[in-house]
Amino acid sequence: MKKWIDEHREEATDLLQKLVQEGSEQGNEQGVQLLVKAHLENLGLDVDYWIPSDEAFLNHPYFCATRKDFSKSPNIVGTWKGTGGGKSIVLNGHIDVVPPGDLNQWDYPPYSGHMEDGKMYGRGVTDMKGGNLALLLAIQCLKELGVKLKGDVLFHSVIEEESGGAGTLAAILRGHTADAALVPEPTNMKIFPKQQGSMWFRLKINGRSAHGGTRYEGISAIEKAMPVIHAIQNLEHERNKRVDDPLYRNTPIPLPINIGKIEGGSWPSSVPDEVLIEGRIGVGPQETLEEIKAEFEHSMRQIEDNWIQQHPVQVEWFGAQWLPGSIDVEHELMGILQSKYEEVLGEPPEIEASPWGTDGGLLTQVGNTPSIVFGPGVTAYAHYPNEYIELEKVFQVAQIFSLVIYEWCEGEGL
Amino acid sequence: MKKWIDEHREEATDLLQKLVQEGSEQGNEQGVQLLVKAHLENLGLDVDYWIPSDEAFLNHPYFCATRKDFSKSPNIVGTWKGTGGGKSIVLNGHIDVVPPGDLNQWDYPPYSGHMEDGKMYGRGVTDMKGGNLALLLAIQCLKELGVKLKGDVLFHSVIEEESGGAGTLAAILRGHTADAALVPEPTNMKIFPKQQGSMWFRLKINGRSAHGGTRYEGISAIEKAMPVIHAIQNLEHERNKRVDDPLYRNTPIPLPINIGKIEGGSWPSSVPDEVLIEGRIGVGPQETLEEIKAEFEHSMRQIEDNWIQQHPVQVEWFGAQWLPGSIDVEHELMGILQSKYEEVLGEPPEIEASPWGTDGGLLTQVGNTPSIVFGPGVTAYAHYPNEYIELEKVFQVAQIFSLVIYEWCEGEGL
Repeated sequence: MKKWIDEHREEATDLLQKLVQEGSEQGNEQGVQLLVKAHLENLGLDVDYWIPSDEAFLNHPYFCATRKDFSKSPNIVGTWKGTGGGKSIVLNGHIDVVPPGDLNQWDYPPYSGHMEDGKMYGRGVTDMKGGNLALLLAIQCLKELGVKLKGDVLFHSVIEEESGGAGTLAAILRGHTADAALVPEPTNMKIFPKQQGSMWFRLKINGRSAHGGTRYEGISAIEKAMPVIHAIQNLEHERNKRVDDPLYRNTPIPLPINIGKIEGGSWPSSVPDEVLIEGRIGVGPQETLEEIKAEFEHSMRQIEDNWIQQHPVQVEWFGAQWLPGSIDVEHELMGILQSKYEEVLGEPPEIEASPWGTDGGLLTQVGNTPSIVFGPGVTAYAHYPNEYIELEKVFQVAQIFSLVIYEWCEGEGL
Repeated sequence: MKKWIDEHREEATDLLQKLVQEGSEQGNEQGVQLLVKAHLENLGLDVDYWIPSDEAFLNHPYFCATRKDFSKSPNIVGTWKGTGGGKSIVLNGHIDVVPPGDLNQWDYPPYSGHMEDGKMYGRGVTDMKGGNLALLLAIQCLKELGVKLKGDVLFHSVIEEESGGAGTLAAILRGHTADAALVPEPTNMKIFPKQQGSMWFRLKINGRSAHGGTRYEGISAIEKAMPVIHAIQNLEHERNKRVDDPLYRNTPIPLPINIGKIEGGSWPSSVPDEVLIEGRIGVGPQETLEEIKAEFEHSMRQIEDNWIQQHPVQVEWFGAQWLPGSIDVEHELMGILQSKYEEVLGEPPEIEASPWGTDGGLLTQVGNTPSIVFGPGVTAYAHYPNEYIELEKVFQVAQIFSLVIYEWCEGEGL
């Protein structure tokens, strides 16, 4: 397999560059998806290319998106049907990219796909088109080497991961699930069997206005925000005391609650009558969003302050949410992935839990498809200017994936 | 005097209504000032009518305004020269009014001067054209009754009180000061020998950004705002422990520090790297702005937090400021005012310290003219929709002022 991959480096690099050059910010994914579709058809896969729009999808409790119209944003699943009797696998990669931000901070145009010193630069190259390319290369390698697999391989090229995972949700609801999944998000080659989910909250704290010179006639919502912030800090402390998973050994706060934004009052000499707080709560791999919502809301009701007891903090769950994902660290696919990693790279992989969610959460919790996140991208440059990937790592991961799929899906012919 | 005033109620009410109907929001004071000028000339006063513009005024350390161009905003001082040898008095009333705000909250148009049940309604009628009218009526009464005064009477019809007092500052710098002053701001007929000054502060608290999922890699500016807020609360506590003036006996917080506004962070799942806090600090009658600035800045430097020690809270003094004002409660003018109040109303006045500043602060500290604030307006409706005044109180105060001026300036002829 290594030989085949080495011989196809240039061809694969060209394809990755084309995928990057197409761009694919939200609402503009059609061009790159047509490229992917043509490539999958060339590989001989059954291609399901569709616009997510049905009611079951749009009304699903885990549907989370800033829009309901995906007419310019097709989703794709390419299926390599197995000969039967083997375990199936989902290979999931999102095709959407976040906006490039301030262009002045980029050394090269973000959609140039500029190459230098074995690196390719561009928005989305690390998060996560380089990972997708590794998946595509693994499939092509197995196909062209004449391999037969017993289990099915389902390649997801999905939209909307960056804003809540509606693309993967649509693929799951269309039945494109399997016995397990690989999600090559940018992990710096680390293996994440568990991923932190997250939700956003918005709190409204009320006060009563008055003139600043007689502030004792009012109730300051800013002062009342302080016990609320303390309650959030206490809740974070309590939640993390319960974490005993050794994967979190080196993480100072495995399940952080981040207060990201505060805004209150409108005039220096008026007592502020409202404060809004927005934040993100991390959801543990084994937790559900519902139980975290209940725990958080309970903590807000327990605040010992007469005014707050009479004017409860209003809690809203808004914006994005990412379900946590997990797979048993003793799961067979974990074993295969670790051994193939060591076979290709000559050393054991690092195994950690991720501090952020991926579409692996939806696959795990909605699709009943336990997921491993592992990919060649550079974590620190995802969403940042001068995002890049090391091409060598893309080919290493492609080789690992070929070996993993061959074993998991019970390949024959090599 | 009561008889004369009773006979001139209708004429005086007409004048007050005209003053209200003219409006006089910032930048639009010329119309009403021309009315005042004509009235003062009719009374036979020497009228100084000018556009404040000289350098000494614009560059004065207590110049505080949102503009430097007063070309449509004349200032007026009318002087009734005494026969000599008597004590002089400033009668200070600002002519500017705050904007009416949401018109839907007004039962009558704000500049209608609508009258009902002995009340006149309108923006500025209570703050403080009704007080000004009481002053004008007192002067007219004394004049028409043929009184001769030994001391000078200086009637100030000044701009800009609502945004920092530049009109009174201009009058002071032009030499229009006296041995004492009366300022008929809306006090609900209470006498305020002391007035709280105030300043606005803006604090910038720095943090370091990071992703919310790894928030331990950043420093939350919202968390760092909490010891800052505690330091402000402690400073307020310490400052108020020192207040032993019996005038503040019934005031829960004589010198409040109000945190009016907080704003920080921009994204729920990012660690906030900056928080801005804006507020107002009350300045005691005997304090100077400079010593309060120093005390406040010192308290910010004393915060025991390593990060804040290395990244000090940035303090800015911005926007409006009002100097505190005061007169000795044993001052002769205080005695005269109290006795005339009791003579007219049959009961002793309430004497308090005001929780807000007036132009009496500039008169006291810059003009060396100790000032008493006392007027007929309704404190609770100043700056609010449906602002009104009870006309009966305007006439009572006019009578009190006539008696006070006659005694203080050593009148003859009655």
